Amino acid sequence: MPVANLRRGDETQRLWVSVVGVRDVEALSLVGELFKLHPLALEDVNNGGQRPKLEDYEDYLFLVTRVLEAGSEQPGQQLSMFIGNNFVVSFQERAGDPFDPIRERLRTKHSRVRARGSDYLAYALLDAVVDHVVPLIDGYGDHLEQLEVRVSQRHASDSVASLFELRRELQGLKRTMMATGDAIERLRSHELQLIEPDTRTYLRDCHDHAVRAVETIDSWRDFCSGLMDLHYARSSQRLNQIMQVLTIISTIFIPLSFITGLYGMNFDRGSRYNMPELGWDYGYPAILGLMALMVVAQLVYFSRRGWLGVRR
Amino acid sequence: MPVANLRRGDETQRLWVSVVGVRDVEALSLVGELFKLHPLALEDVNNGGQRPKLEDYEDYLFLVTRVLEAGSEQPGQQLSMFIGNNFVVSFQERAGDPFDPIRERLRTKHSRVRARGSDYLAYALLDAVVDHVVPLIDGYGDHLEQLEVRVSQRHASDSVASLFELRRELQGLKRTMMATGDAIERLRSHELQLIEPDTRTYLRDCHDHAVRAVETIDSWRDFCSGLMDLHYARSSQRLNQIMQVLTIISTIFIPLSFITGLYGMNFDRGSRYNMPELGWDYGYPAILGLMALMVVAQLVYFSRRGWLGVRR
Amino acid sequence: MPVANLRRGDETQRLWVSVVGVRDVEALSLVGELFKLHPLALEDVNNGGQRPKLEDYEDYLFLVTRVLEAGSEQPGQQLSMFIGNNFVVSFQERAGDPFDPIRERLRTKHSRVRARGSDYLAYALLDAVVDHVVPLIDGYGDHLEQLEVRVSQRHASDSVASLFELRRELQGLKRTMMATGDAIERLRSHELQLIEPDTRTYLRDCHDHAVRAVETIDSWRDFCSGLMDLHYARSSQRLNQIMQVLTIISTIFIPLSFITGLYGMNFDRGSRYNMPELGWDYGYPAILGLMALMVVAQLVYFSRRGWLGVRR
Amino acid sequence: MPVANLRRGDETQRLWVSVVGVRDVEALSLVGELFKLHPLALEDVNNGGQRPKLEDYEDYLFLVTRVLEAGSEQPGQQLSMFIGNNFVVSFQERAGDPFDPIRERLRTKHSRVRARGSDYLAYALLDAVVDHVVPLIDGYGDHLEQLEVRVSQRHASDSVASLFELRRELQGLKRTMMATGDAIERLRSHELQLIEPDTRTYLRDCHDHAVRAVETIDSWRDFCSGLMDLHYARSSQRLNQIMQVLTIISTIFIPLSFITGLYGMNFDRGSRYNMPELGWDYGYPAILGLMALMVVAQLVYFSRRGWLGVRR
Amino acid sequence: MPVANLRRGDETQRLWVSVVGVRDVEALSLVGELFKLHPLALEDVNNGGQRPKLEDYEDYLFLVTRVLEAGSEQPGQQLSMFIGNNFVVSFQERAGDPFDPIRERLRTKHSRVRARGSDYLAYALLDAVVDHVVPLIDGYGDHLEQLEVRVSQRHASDSVASLFELRRELQGLKRTMMATGDAIERLRSHELQLIEPDTRTYLRDCHDHAVRAVETIDSWRDFCSGLMDLHYARSSQRLNQIMQVLTIISTIFIPLSFITGLYGMNFDRGSRYNMPELGWDYGYPAILGLMALMVVAQLVYFSRRGWLGVRR
Repeated sequence: MPVANLRRGDETQRLWVSVVGVRDVEALSLVGELFKLHPLALEDVNNGGQRPKLEDYEDYLFLVTRVLEAGSEQPGQQLSMFIGNNFVVSFQERAGDPFDPIRERLRTKHSRVRARGSDYLAYALLDAVVDHVVPLIDGYGDHLEQLEVRVSQRHASDSVASLFELRRELQGLKRTMMATGDAIERLRSHELQLIEPDTRTYLRDCHDHAVRAVETIDSWRDFCSGLMDLHYARSSQRLNQIMQVLTIISTIFIPLSFITGLYGMNFDRGSRYNMPELGWDYGYPAILGLMALMVVAQLVYFSRRGWLGVRR
Repeated sequence: MPVANLRRGDETQRLWVSVVGVRDVEALSLVGELFKLHPLALEDVNNGGQRPKLEDYEDYLFLVTRVLEAGSEQPGQQLSMFIGNNFVVSFQERAGDPFDPIRERLRTKHSRVRARGSDYLAYALLDAVVDHVVPLIDGYGDHLEQLEVRVSQRHASDSVASLFELRRELQGLKRTMMATGDAIERLRSHELQLIEPDTRTYLRDCHDHAVRAVETIDSWRDFCSGLMDLHYARSSQRLNQIMQVLTIISTIFIPLSFITGLYGMNFDRGSRYNMPELGWDYGYPAILGLMALMVVAQLVYFSRRGWLGVRR
Repeated sequence: MPVANLRRGDETQRLWVSVVGVRDVEALSLVGELFKLHPLALEDVNNGGQRPKLEDYEDYLFLVTRVLEAGSEQPGQQLSMFIGNNFVVSFQERAGDPFDPIRERLRTKHSRVRARGSDYLAYALLDAVVDHVVPLIDGYGDHLEQLEVRVSQRHASDSVASLFELRRELQGLKRTMMATGDAIERLRSHELQLIEPDTRTYLRDCHDHAVRAVETIDSWRDFCSGLMDLHYARSSQRLNQIMQVLTIISTIFIPLSFITGLYGMNFDRGSRYNMPELGWDYGYPAILGLMALMVVAQLVYFSRRGWLGVRR
Repeated sequence: MPVANLRRGDETQRLWVSVVGVRDVEALSLVGELFKLHPLALEDVNNGGQRPKLEDYEDYLFLVTRVLEAGSEQPGQQLSMFIGNNFVVSFQERAGDPFDPIRERLRTKHSRVRARGSDYLAYALLDAVVDHVVPLIDGYGDHLEQLEVRVSQRHASDSVASLFELRRELQGLKRTMMATGDAIERLRSHELQLIEPDTRTYLRDCHDHAVRAVETIDSWRDFCSGLMDLHYARSSQRLNQIMQVLTIISTIFIPLSFITGLYGMNFDRGSRYNMPELGWDYGYPAILGLMALMVVAQLVYFSRRGWLGVRR
Repeated sequence: MPVANLRRGDETQRLWVSVVGVRDVEALSLVGELFKLHPLALEDVNNGGQRPKLEDYEDYLFLVTRVLEAGSEQPGQQLSMFIGNNFVVSFQERAGDPFDPIRERLRTKHSRVRARGSDYLAYALLDAVVDHVVPLIDGYGDHLEQLEVRVSQRHASDSVASLFELRRELQGLKRTMMATGDAIERLRSHELQLIEPDTRTYLRDCHDHAVRAVETIDSWRDFCSGLMDLHYARSSQRLNQIMQVLTIISTIFIPLSFITGLYGMNFDRGSRYNMPELGWDYGYPAILGLMALMVVAQLVYFSRRGWLGVRR
């Protein structure tokens, strides 16, 4: 546990203990003993990989959520919070969080975060976490709109894999945000006296933000699936066009080539039954005319079927 | 805030404050102070982009909905309403709303809107919002029926993208209308004394309209998906037909061309084993007959398999 | 309102007012005043296009359902019913309904419909409406079974559009029947004293019929989707077969044609390096033998891959 | 009603009336009068085609289920049961049921079925019905595993229709078993004193069996859908392979054939510009070498694209 | 029943009876009599193939779960537990379980498992079962990631069947874990005094692990379906490319071959109308030039359509 920065609120002994780094089991248990935290909860803090959730213990609430980071490869670090009567103990896996504005406000005298109880502090942290996810979601939206352009303009064969990857990520993100929203809602509607009516109003707003985030993610997922469908539609349409061109060229020339082959045969011209056409004076022009006629007939047939208008 | 038109009802100090334009934070907070509106709610008013919802504060209800506009590119403006004991404060983002008939009725003496409380006024506004969406939905229906004609008559390659876009828009529209319906239902079933039994009957009717709108949207979405399926079916059927024509032409002529090639070879005729057929008196007619036989055999085979009946 | 046939039950002033035609607003409001019906409900009667539903007003219940007609193009007319303490007022859009047996029973002395209250009369009407839908559903079943034969026997390219249309109709029918079932269930479980225990038993039976209708519709819809899948499967299988035939013919003859082309070239035979094969005594039989060998080799290859067994 | 075998339990006048054949309305109403059964319930008995359900009348429970038969074409006969305080009246459509062991146990003195009330008898019948469905479900499993072998080993074009049919049957079976499970659960949790605590334990077990049956059916349906997907995947893979072979053969030989055609032209050799290659001493070997080079180049290209490795 | 190892806890007569092997009915009923276990529950123990579930009998709870084994072909053995006031009787089908650490702790004096009641022992067993499934799920994840590489790198035709099999297994695994989680949750929230508050905290943690396992399985299933989609997309893209190459080669060479065939015809050159081109001095170069022109024109056409850029 590299850094354990305790900040003691001066009014009424209110306390926010923010622990950065959760792998040092010994230090964890030390903090645990100090605030009488349940070993099971501390185990969740130490292990990471928890779903966002709210669990109530006798003297405090245990809330787990996840700080998601735009533009980062990592799936976001786990933020664990113990919300007691006059303390909030938060654990995060590594330095780097969206809580600096809150720290600033805590340092300011007469700020609301400082004046109010631990419930409001917990709200402030959760609000920062939920709002922190907005640029991440916007990033997905931008990415999808770029993919839409690629899918609709050119034959972007690699975009399927991107879409597939994107849909998976959005699915994971949705799960996290839904669980976070549930945890916030459970905190809001908790019967505990600890949470004051006014804080509940703020938590409702925070829950509302989480729900809106989930809805946006949902609409991106729909968009994603739609783009996949569109890509498939375009691919199959393209195949149709290619087949059409092949068919038209083939069906026009195959019979013509047969005719040229026919009159390229070397039958003995001694017999008057063998290829008399070759001896005719106008044999060649007649054959050329016949071929032209066949081409016209085929073009008319294809045109009637609407196969000539190869659309892009 | 360009226009702030306050209309004071003469009976019992009832008041509708309709604020147009929500970007001026200062003016907003002024109105907020006047009616003691919660800063969180005012923030929602200012930000826009809220889901339709109903939130209850101690002294008033806060209702957000969305005025959707047929034929407009914009996703509709947000309408926020504070419904208090003897006032309704409504905020809209820009001028242009479906409330002119209500304004007219408010000016008329002895009109019902004027005679009754703020709950009835809120109903009247919501009713106008919900009914305003009907031409928009009808427009989608018309668009879809045009697309149906295009899909079923011709090979409309661009209609897939249109359908994809349409389905997305309908999905968004459905979300908005469902949330609006939920907010109305929550208003109707709210335990608050403010809402009189008779108004609840009206709100039930309004909720019913919203639900019917959602059902219509749902059926258009089903229609949309069905049209996509139909389009794919037609495309693949078309490919089948094209392949069929290619196959028939190819399989008929390829063997024939082989035979003509065979008798076009230049083997030395000195040897009696080399291509004696070329020397026969009836060689050419015999070969022509053989070819005709092959064509007939193939046609019979294809016909038996049902491959000749190329249906449109 | 062309016909307003009032039938006054002789026992205890019980009354069934059946109004046919709902477009005459004045007449509607007259009936409305007589029975003190709410203007919102009368508006629903007049507008048509309502979802089946049950709404309770203070003195009566307002029930909307839809009389569906087998073999008719129209989507069925709306039937609106006001069920009061000692009256039933029903509104239908046009003449032609399945209520003649009930009218007959009402004329008969000592019939149950006559002896019992308005709740039983409402049940009798609803029962007639629900049972009236059975032949319509059976008709869909017959239609689907015909389509199944077409899909499985021949290449019915038009059946996709039929199936698509059918599925849409079934979806709409399902919505109507589900809403009707819900309305009946809500009537059955209504706390109102008006509905006697025995009538509730009858309503349960009626609800059961509606649920069974929905289940049948559901199974037809599944059938519909399954037939579409089957059609696609057959189409793609057909394409595979066609491609297979084309491939076999092509791959057998293309190399052979190359060889015939080779020996059709006109190189000067003066050089002993130019096409000496043409001068061999057994050149032609040797080439024929080579070709035969190639054909056999290819057939063996195809057969090993299982490509020769073109199944129907 | 061919057989009406009444078996009177000797203890406390307990009675199981098992009626076989339900088409004789008169006989039905006779039994109905004897036990005061409701006409609506008797109608359900007579009509058949009911969903499994439990309905409670004042003096008895009315339970409908379905006896499914492995290896039978018929959809199973309807079993209707009236469970009263000291009687069970069961109706089945035809002879042949899984109740012989129960009959046997009833004949045995001191058997549990005989010692306990009508609730236990009802349980025993239901248990027999639910367990009777196991071999039927196992049969579907065996059928599916056979189809899996066919789909994975050979190109079984007819298995799609079988899978489609199977999925439909499983869907119907699932509906029946789910409704049966619901009816049993409603019987178990019925507040009626008639059902003793111990019997409830037995009914829970019976419900558990029904739920397990539904789960097995569900997994078979998933299997079914998976096999369809697999079949489509294999078909499309097969088409790909066929196209690949066609493409390789075609693209190799088409250019070669062009060259042979080129030197098969009959331009007058008098001009030194016309086809001088034909006069070269090593023209033929040079052309053969050129062709070999082209083939090698193409094979290298295809091999680089990974198109040569036609996998089975 | 090969082994029946009874371990008697020394404090307060607490007892864990662990029975290995459940096929010996006689021995089962012996244990059953000893602890007064219900015959229905013992039947479930004996039969195996139960869904995980919790059933409450008067004096004990009956819990069934399944010990899943990574790397094993078998679907995991059934673990049945009777949790009474001062005893836990567990039945497993064969030797080999994840309970050795618990046995070890039971042997240690002053261990928590030994100090606390049967409820804690039941928790410890369940926790071991749930945690035992983690390596199994991880194994699926590894397998899927290998398949992802195969699908994205090469044309892995056999991976579809693997994915299909995998998805089925994951579906089954999910069912088991969901039912296990439900049973644990029902145990946790059971009103029985037997389960102490502190144990409930531990059970909540255990339930949380089960839920997380289900979520991971769900995400693997989504991944699985996504990989299938990706595989199909790649296959169809590959087909498109192959068709493209075939089309380009064919459409370029088919017209050229027609021209060579044309001038390979053997019309009598005596007539001045028959193939005069063959007599021109520059006939051959002219034809070659014409052909080159045609090739260029076609390449330009294809390039404009974007068909030449065959992407990998």
